[in-house]
Amino acid sequence: MLVDEGLELLDEGQCMQLLGGESLGRVGISMGALPVILPVNYSIVDGDIVFRTGTGLKLKAALDHTIVAFEVDHADMELHEGWSVLVVGVAEEVTAAADCFDTTVPASWVGGERSRLIRIRPELMSGRNINRDYDEGVAK
Amino acid sequence: MLVDEGLELLDEGQCMQLLGGESLGRVGISMGALPVILPVNYSIVDGDIVFRTGTGLKLKAALDHTIVAFEVDHADMELHEGWSVLVVGVAEEVTAAADCFDTTVPASWVGGERSRLIRIRPELMSGRNINRDYDEGVAK
Repeated sequence: MLVDEGLELLDEGQCMQLLGGESLGRVGISMGALPVILPVNYSIVDGDIVFRTGTGLKLKAALDHTIVAFEVDHADMELHEGWSVLVVGVAEEVTAAADCFDTTVPASWVGGERSRLIRIRPELMSGRNINRDYDEGVAK
Repeated sequence: MLVDEGLELLDEGQCMQLLGGESLGRVGISMGALPVILPVNYSIVDGDIVFRTGTGLKLKAALDHTIVAFEVDHADMELHEGWSVLVVGVAEEVTAAADCFDTTVPASWVGGERSRLIRIRPELMSGRNINRDYDEGVAK
């Protein structure tokens, strides 16, 4: 088991499995020189993170082919256990193959027009796990 | 009620109240030119977001007085309702008043040394709310 500052490191396969089991993630982009973090409902399609958006910051990031961060985490607030997966990749609009994506990518929870599809193709992926067994010196 | 692209906008008082009711948030910083998002356990102390860290990226951001993003959200996966609060501010290490902070700021869930205290003093704060009543045209 690989460990980084007390956190168990997850391999890429484990990260993809965890990403596939959730649907709420967060995109980290820059607005001018300021960092922002925005929640999105996503799906994994052919190994890419795909979500819907309107005409705001996330679409702009995609049209500019910006490098963005994408994070998903899960926490058990009672046990103080949890994991997080961080993806870094270029955001781009999906303009082809829209029929296939339409059935796979969840609708945005937000009312109003959210018709643009954005894809993040993972370039870097890392995951970290916290569990009590490890803290107590018993590796799972 | 203020609305932005189908999302109800929250005022600063509502944002602070929501931040005060949670303990897991996410810090958005840059590592070189790459954006990253890292989960932390935090407290609100005198209006600032305070969390513990080790000697990694978050401490470096604080020592460099970097402008960082901080996000907290809450989602009801069944009702498709939720909210998110985004804070932008300068990260800095807390070196004075450590006794007071020691009792207030939660221990990191991670094993190992996490003894440095970091504070984000909010410069910008915004919050967004999704609820079904609003989507159906009935403002709460």
